[in-house]
Amino acid sequence: MNKKDIVIIGGSAAGLTAAISARRTYPEKTILLIRQEKQVLIPCGIPYVFGTVGSPEKNLMPDAPLEKNNIELLIGKATGIDRKNRVIHTTDGDVGYDRLIISTGSLPIMPPIPGFDIDGVFAVLKDVEFLRNLQQRLAQAKDIVVIGGGFIGIEVADEINKLGDKNISIVELMPHCLSLAYDEEFCIEMEDVLRERGLALRTGVKVEAINGDATVESVSLSDGTTLKADLVIMGIGAAPNVELAKAAGLHIGLTGSIAVDRTMRTSDDFIYACGDCAEKISFFGGGASPLKLASIAALEARIAGANLFGLKRESPGTVGVWSTAVGDLALGTAGLTEAMAKKRGYDVVAVAIEGPNRHPGIMPGAAKIKVKLVFESNSGVLLGGQVRGDSTAGEISNIISACIQKRMTAEDIAMFQMGTQPALTASPVAYPLVNLAEMAIAQMHRS
Amino acid sequence: MNKKDIVIIGGSAAGLTAAISARRTYPEKTILLIRQEKQVLIPCGIPYVFGTVGSPEKNLMPDAPLEKNNIELLIGKATGIDRKNRVIHTTDGDVGYDRLIISTGSLPIMPPIPGFDIDGVFAVLKDVEFLRNLQQRLAQAKDIVVIGGGFIGIEVADEINKLGDKNISIVELMPHCLSLAYDEEFCIEMEDVLRERGLALRTGVKVEAINGDATVESVSLSDGTTLKADLVIMGIGAAPNVELAKAAGLHIGLTGSIAVDRTMRTSDDFIYACGDCAEKISFFGGGASPLKLASIAALEARIAGANLFGLKRESPGTVGVWSTAVGDLALGTAGLTEAMAKKRGYDVVAVAIEGPNRHPGIMPGAAKIKVKLVFESNSGVLLGGQVRGDSTAGEISNIISACIQKRMTAEDIAMFQMGTQPALTASPVAYPLVNLAEMAIAQMHRS
Repeated sequence: MNKKDIVIIGGSAAGLTAAISARRTYPEKTILLIRQEKQVLIPCGIPYVFGTVGSPEKNLMPDAPLEKNNIELLIGKATGIDRKNRVIHTTDGDVGYDRLIISTGSLPIMPPIPGFDIDGVFAVLKDVEFLRNLQQRLAQAKDIVVIGGGFIGIEVADEINKLGDKNISIVELMPHCLSLAYDEEFCIEMEDVLRERGLALRTGVKVEAINGDATVESVSLSDGTTLKADLVIMGIGAAPNVELAKAAGLHIGLTGSIAVDRTMRTSDDFIYACGDCAEKISFFGGGASPLKLASIAALEARIAGANLFGLKRESPGTVGVWSTAVGDLALGTAGLTEAMAKKRGYDVVAVAIEGPNRHPGIMPGAAKIKVKLVFESNSGVLLGGQVRGDSTAGEISNIISACIQKRMTAEDIAMFQMGTQPALTASPVAYPLVNLAEMAIAQMHRS
Repeated sequence: MNKKDIVIIGGSAAGLTAAISARRTYPEKTILLIRQEKQVLIPCGIPYVFGTVGSPEKNLMPDAPLEKNNIELLIGKATGIDRKNRVIHTTDGDVGYDRLIISTGSLPIMPPIPGFDIDGVFAVLKDVEFLRNLQQRLAQAKDIVVIGGGFIGIEVADEINKLGDKNISIVELMPHCLSLAYDEEFCIEMEDVLRERGLALRTGVKVEAINGDATVESVSLSDGTTLKADLVIMGIGAAPNVELAKAAGLHIGLTGSIAVDRTMRTSDDFIYACGDCAEKISFFGGGASPLKLASIAALEARIAGANLFGLKRESPGTVGVWSTAVGDLALGTAGLTEAMAKKRGYDVVAVAIEGPNRHPGIMPGAAKIKVKLVFESNSGVLLGGQVRGDSTAGEISNIISACIQKRMTAEDIAMFQMGTQPALTASPVAYPLVNLAEMAIAQMHRS
């Protein structure tokens, strides 16, 4: 029987990163990655397949890192795990393992809305064939309803809009789009941009039913209105894909994901899990976390891959770092919003500032950038931050993320030396992160 | 006599920031800022006056922050400090102080090259009138020699080049431009871009003499060649402006700047100094540091302003964080280069990576970004990093700066959750900082 030191099931962001991490940590071990897909889609790139990028085939993760890192690839489906004998059954035969990493990811949630199974209702599956089919259907569709105004929903809607000549609506249950990761004032700015670009927003309403006979015809909302629809896309989130792990008798955690400890080890000492399929705890307070993000998956993969034959790393929990862009508007977020922090019971000082991202403000590429930071009042520790700006918003939220992860205080940030340049950043006097830290300190001393 | 609780002499980046910091820390104190200039130039924006921005008047620091923070402004020259009676003599009368901050900045170095005082030889003075005059002379000049290939030299040369129809040469003593802040491989990339844009580079040569009778005609180099020149610009650095402090008997430090301790206090308990005029120590090892950067000035100003009536902050020393941009090429640096670290005696692991700044790599705005990190081998502590990329290079070097300042290790960085987005950043699998940290860890374990 084929037997490897390390086997990884799943080849998306978590699986690939775990394999590379294992290779870096264990140069002498044999490593095999098992995945179902001949070609693996870049998960975050999927919305762009419909517009900017043009086809699923142009949004693939290269297999070169596997070859480069001497990681064997088996394309097939893992159908069962014999934990006692440490053997994986696959559609391509049995494979023995010494250590196993499960990174089977997640599947889009299809909620039990009446009519969700009518022809013309699509989730956003991470599958080349599926997306190619969806793309063909989109080409013929005129009235499109996207259910869910999170980042996947808005990115997909905006990209489809680039095809032209379509009526696109986004339906969101919460009062605002993106409200799970941004405070209201940021959500409203994104909503304004979406509307300017011709998208119809229906927020604070529930989808009651999807209607149609042979194929979808309309969507009924909780406010009594009905949206015409010849195609519906579900973008309301993803559920962990734990079928294989469950069948093998691995413990399942509070959120329905594979239970793991901070080392990413499951209830079986020889099996690790990482990415969307693995249970997560929050960086803030340690409670169960429903977040599913590439930044988390990649971290967990680096932990799992390094820990297989001796513990080296522990997960600090999910911070929640990500960004999104529509047109010229980019939003980045890291950690807790003001609303989330208050809801969890933190006593916070929140400060926000708006100013040019260049100096002087007439330099090319100049745009107003807005940054908000949320600190815990007593300790001054940074809990979260949000950025609205140009293409640097992603990296600015990564600065914030680094500060959060090292539990930096307002005083730490106020003491930063941050490089500034007329063509690239805000001015040294007005650099937003540092100024916000100073503003927060002044507020804390006053209160 | 006019008397204030806090007086600041100098109104550029350090002085203005110190005034704001003092206001934030001491809401009840009276604050006066004395400066010579009616209008203050944005220092880092000066090179752009000649091309992109178009005139000195479009590159001014607004006075609004003074009004907003209730800081009085006196436009005049401070001619002496009577430390015993705590009185400043100015061209506009005497002003008493309780605490004084000196932020008189620096003046461009005019080296004792024969001919440096001929008409047509200019430094880059931070003065509106001076720059307006230089601009007029530039309009008529055809053959221009810029002496000094640091960031000011290359930015000024490239901006003048935008005026068209000029022959511009940059003369640099070191083997490469920018070599005080970038390793050779980054310097070479910038040099290639400068050449592509039509600038002539003469590196590894010394200026022997500037020649001309009534006005400059040529520049003689140490390799025996001569460059035709009807205008010469000096961009070889700046010396601390300590005339006033020296006359008042304040101690002067190793590098000729005003001696200060880590709290930015001078040899007089009631006087603080910050910015280009103040003595600096390095973050790395604590030796005297010749660096003069806006990021350092702003930090020192935040320390001085906060410490006036009770110590709150200490300077960690100069890290050296800045970025520069020519055309589409942006470079960012923070901390020590590989060459500098080795020269100082550190045992280092240096790792570099190049990859797309978008995912997939065909997204709009995609460019190859290159990042290099330098770690101390034994502790794994990050000593420095350099970035070559698009407009995000500035903020990426600020992430690196934050990591350096908190003495983060490769392991800390490998454990980051960094947000990624197709239109804004590299992919989660390939995010450069995290991958470099992993590469460095693998190397450290091997050695």
